[in-house]
Amino acid sequence: MKGNKLSRRSGARSVDVVVIGAGFAGLTAARALEAQGLKVQVIEARDRVGGRSRPGKLFGRTIDTGGQWVGVGHERLTRLVHEAGAELVPQYSVGKKLVQINNKTRYYSGLIPPVSVRALIEMQFALWRLTALQRKIDPKVPWQSTLANLDTQTVADWQRRWLRSDGAQALFDIGVRAIFCAKPGQLSMLHFLTYLRANGSFNYLASAEGGAQAATVKGGMHQLSVHLAKKLQQKILFGAPVQKITQSSKGVVVTHSRGNIQAKRVVLAVAPALARKIEGDAMTTARRRLGERMPMGSVIKCLIAYKRPFWREQGFTGEFVSNTAGFSPMFDASPADGSCGILVGFFDGPTAVRWSSDADGRRREVIRSVVAAFGAEGENPVDYVDHDWITDPFSEGCYVGLPAPGALTELGASLRAPHGRVHYAGTETASEWIGYIEGAIESGERAAIEVCAAL
Amino acid sequence: MKGNKLSRRSGARSVDVVVIGAGFAGLTAARALEAQGLKVQVIEARDRVGGRSRPGKLFGRTIDTGGQWVGVGHERLTRLVHEAGAELVPQYSVGKKLVQINNKTRYYSGLIPPVSVRALIEMQFALWRLTALQRKIDPKVPWQSTLANLDTQTVADWQRRWLRSDGAQALFDIGVRAIFCAKPGQLSMLHFLTYLRANGSFNYLASAEGGAQAATVKGGMHQLSVHLAKKLQQKILFGAPVQKITQSSKGVVVTHSRGNIQAKRVVLAVAPALARKIEGDAMTTARRRLGERMPMGSVIKCLIAYKRPFWREQGFTGEFVSNTAGFSPMFDASPADGSCGILVGFFDGPTAVRWSSDADGRRREVIRSVVAAFGAEGENPVDYVDHDWITDPFSEGCYVGLPAPGALTELGASLRAPHGRVHYAGTETASEWIGYIEGAIESGERAAIEVCAAL
Repeated sequence: MKGNKLSRRSGARSVDVVVIGAGFAGLTAARALEAQGLKVQVIEARDRVGGRSRPGKLFGRTIDTGGQWVGVGHERLTRLVHEAGAELVPQYSVGKKLVQINNKTRYYSGLIPPVSVRALIEMQFALWRLTALQRKIDPKVPWQSTLANLDTQTVADWQRRWLRSDGAQALFDIGVRAIFCAKPGQLSMLHFLTYLRANGSFNYLASAEGGAQAATVKGGMHQLSVHLAKKLQQKILFGAPVQKITQSSKGVVVTHSRGNIQAKRVVLAVAPALARKIEGDAMTTARRRLGERMPMGSVIKCLIAYKRPFWREQGFTGEFVSNTAGFSPMFDASPADGSCGILVGFFDGPTAVRWSSDADGRRREVIRSVVAAFGAEGENPVDYVDHDWITDPFSEGCYVGLPAPGALTELGASLRAPHGRVHYAGTETASEWIGYIEGAIESGERAAIEVCAAL
Repeated sequence: MKGNKLSRRSGARSVDVVVIGAGFAGLTAARALEAQGLKVQVIEARDRVGGRSRPGKLFGRTIDTGGQWVGVGHERLTRLVHEAGAELVPQYSVGKKLVQINNKTRYYSGLIPPVSVRALIEMQFALWRLTALQRKIDPKVPWQSTLANLDTQTVADWQRRWLRSDGAQALFDIGVRAIFCAKPGQLSMLHFLTYLRANGSFNYLASAEGGAQAATVKGGMHQLSVHLAKKLQQKILFGAPVQKITQSSKGVVVTHSRGNIQAKRVVLAVAPALARKIEGDAMTTARRRLGERMPMGSVIKCLIAYKRPFWREQGFTGEFVSNTAGFSPMFDASPADGSCGILVGFFDGPTAVRWSSDADGRRREVIRSVVAAFGAEGENPVDYVDHDWITDPFSEGCYVGLPAPGALTELGASLRAPHGRVHYAGTETASEWIGYIEGAIESGERAAIEVCAAL
């Protein structure tokens, strides 16, 4: 839903609740509030709904240049898929997967990656250890756990201690970068464990079958935000970045680029790193500071199309991970009927930053990586599209905000606590499925309940 | 120098060099460039010069609500003091100093703080160890050092390993918070060592006599920025935050809130965390990302006045440090003639964030701390003033930007490297005396040389 038609409306002057942000969190909150009979206005900086999900076109097909996968157990999102009349397509995973470590490529089927026995044993022990640690954390209040001191350690530190072999180090690195779009050395160990706990486990997060990348939505994730927006009967104001929020005992005034609006309550449904830029008293100093110490991950999502999914003919799933190729991880994103071949993949963490200023270069690097993985046929794509989430001004990165070491214990308590008339939503504020669309929806539901209880 | 008179001027339309930021770095660069016969325009977001130095009034005296001290070896700043006809006053340090650890207050004279012998030995070994480590780092390129991997460790990690006793832990904590306005758990060990190396040593940074707090400027630090600005013959445009920088092969256009200006080169003399907000191509994605991962420290500076420096009469220097009192460290800032008593001190790190939204509360906390340190006479101040640097929109904190773990090795190379026609200054880009006014001046000189070489 482009906002061209809608954005000419100037929006209401006074409502019960202003919802800032028309991603999954904001739309969910708005819909729940409206269902309670409240007058709602959604204000969105972009000219579209969907936030960190984003539609695109490739070789005539609608594809996702943002959030794409539905994980096992993502119940709210699955319900929404059904409600919207959409269809889940299992992630294609028939055949061999490719792992490239230090430029040496190997393939495997099933669950056991082709690394040394020592690496496998180390990795398995490390995963057991992580599972034992994450059990001690309540993802609602990780700063209260007995492990809170791990907030002053990085994941790299832990990795150095428990993973010694090259193979295990590399597998762990690849996994962390794919999950967080960041290197282990910048992540707080407490936040890492919180994230694993909120999302099942490291294995769940890294997996297609049975994991976070289990299925995609036929026709694209974006139709679900459009579906949510339709239910709101055009109460969304587009192209209006919020500049200031001012609270008083009587109410709250939201000033945006095209005017201002009075409300009883506000739901601020944007990532903390973005929210901090709003002036006035939308948040405490602690919440603002948290935004400053919780930058978004770095990622460029790329999709490349071929006439046929030629890797399938060679017995490959299309899955390729590497600790050296720029473009990794990579997955099959072809239409279910196999009528053309599409590969989707990411530049994540430092490689995303490196290729951010070079659109031509990264296209070549994508092709180079496909050739390295699946052979010379990769040289002849029929279409290509990408989206650099780092330079997207209303995202500043993806998939999710990453509290730097020390930030959670010092400032985490301000993440979800309402401040006066302002309530916070967005996947960063979720207490389960943090970082996923499922978490965004959960946070929107929770914020709506908070607001209803307060009104 | 308030900008009221100057800010009515609209500034030039085209110059050789635009300098963004009228702190010590920008003013130094501008002056050096003008001395080379170049046409310069300085653009400043605030209505005053001085950046993170800032004048104030207390009990009829001019005081510093920002940068205040001149350290031993700060040669450029000392030269500027003499050039401006100002006078250095040694930090008052006659008598006993107070150390409060876990609410137990003790006093001492000389250099040896009153903690257990075990704590003293641990502390001494730790300082030797730090000295040995910092020697291996070139503060120009810490990411190239053999210790670069320490970027993925926090200072808290190192502290846990080498300091076991409560006393040593507490002293180290107090020192780190006073130096960085942040807790050890959020600091990269590589950045910590770089900072120590660039500024002599941990002891130098924590010390008045012979150290970074050796002297103040009679009449206030601010007169030095005013002196620099006078030399620029009103070529400063005030109240004009820069919004966008656009480069081409022909030149660069700087768009600010009151117009735009064409130049051959730009010197961007603001902290990376602030610079990142400028749109356009002022920097690479890596430099922008570095700004996002280099938040400013958290500090509120407070000054409180009494009729007499009554602590001197009790034999105290006025120096008080504590790991529990909100208001610590505290120093004597009375006029040289002792005509009234002034104490200066800080809420730093988490305590600054906590008291940021409560101006009345922190005033009471300052008085409570003075009473705890120097007795009941502290209850009757005659004047009080503070400045919250966290919520200051054109600083976002003080004293200095702090690269989070992982940021220096991943992105540090972009800190000082010119990008096209844009050159970077500011104390964060200094290669000696990083974080100090001395470093700001050094960076301004270096940027001016870069620009002259390029033109």
